[in-house]
Amino acid sequence: MKNFPFTFGIDVTSAQLEHYDNHIRRRLSSMVGYYSDQQAFARQLAKEDSLLYEVYETRRPEVAGELLNGLSVVHPGKVGDEYFMTKGHFHSVLETGEVYYCLKGEGAMVMETPEGDWSVEELRPGRVLYVPPRWAHRSVNIGANEDLVTFFVYPGHAGHDYGTIEKFGFRKLLVEREGKPQVIDNPRWRAQSV
Amino acid sequence: MKNFPFTFGIDVTSAQLEHYDNHIRRRLSSMVGYYSDQQAFARQLAKEDSLLYEVYETRRPEVAGELLNGLSVVHPGKVGDEYFMTKGHFHSVLETGEVYYCLKGEGAMVMETPEGDWSVEELRPGRVLYVPPRWAHRSVNIGANEDLVTFFVYPGHAGHDYGTIEKFGFRKLLVEREGKPQVIDNPRWRAQSV
Repeated sequence: MKNFPFTFGIDVTSAQLEHYDNHIRRRLSSMVGYYSDQQAFARQLAKEDSLLYEVYETRRPEVAGELLNGLSVVHPGKVGDEYFMTKGHFHSVLETGEVYYCLKGEGAMVMETPEGDWSVEELRPGRVLYVPPRWAHRSVNIGANEDLVTFFVYPGHAGHDYGTIEKFGFRKLLVEREGKPQVIDNPRWRAQSV
Repeated sequence: MKNFPFTFGIDVTSAQLEHYDNHIRRRLSSMVGYYSDQQAFARQLAKEDSLLYEVYETRRPEVAGELLNGLSVVHPGKVGDEYFMTKGHFHSVLETGEVYYCLKGEGAMVMETPEGDWSVEELRPGRVLYVPPRWAHRSVNIGANEDLVTFFVYPGHAGHDYGTIEKFGFRKLLVEREGKPQVIDNPRWRAQSV
């Protein structure tokens, strides 16, 4: 681990980092159970195991005081009427936030707290999103043809809790209705206390 | 303090945030002792108390897990042959880093550790700079006419130690020589152990 300062470029057009240590690719097959319309999911997967999103990370020690950062690229598309999206997660250390800077595309962040608050914020180029501590977050690409590209920064000790969302889902979904994005209640969502 | 997620735009052209809680303006008169050529500094201050740099901040609780963020704008200019620059500081909690994303202009970050390592990294639009924990940092505008605009993120508990740099300076200065930026030893720098 080098401990000297370093720089790297973000190529917005190609949606790539000039330098990165880790490249995560999430395909449809890794999203079993995440989409509401399970029949549409099965039909689509039978046809093609599409690439839904990618994350480029710069590795740093996972301790408080460090800042983990990287690029998130969500490709355009839908499963049924639900847009391509990331799995979404809480941080393992719940009291840690995240900053997003949107570089390209048209999207939204779907968020919620364990206490039941929820929020959907727009992502557009040139806009910063602050995700406060305690908020689970999922990026959704609502654009027709373009990648949603965001640069993210979060505390080194945050960690990822994917399990809670995988099991219970988000309270809200972002779907296309009459050609426009709409926030709806997740019909499959179950309160964690049940 | 709202604890819901929120977004705000960065207008790169006007170098402003759509929303901010605090606006710091540093003029020449607040930089006594910082520039190497003290006669040039006195002559320049007698003429005009120029605005050297501005910082726009979004307020958040100053605790680990939160991410303080904002916009830094260093105006173009020189004092003698030394470029307009920020005061520069260590974080009070030394083991905290910072991430910069350059939006506009042409600049450099001058950095050093208490152990004596130093580094100067270029800032150009579309580039990310990672300042690891332990590194004091100062933004320098090396452009002729344009603002140097960067978006920064650092851990909520970092704090600012301006005193060390105010008293001892940085080991290295960035000056213009034959129309080009050059890193030189700071003739006034004194080892902290002396």
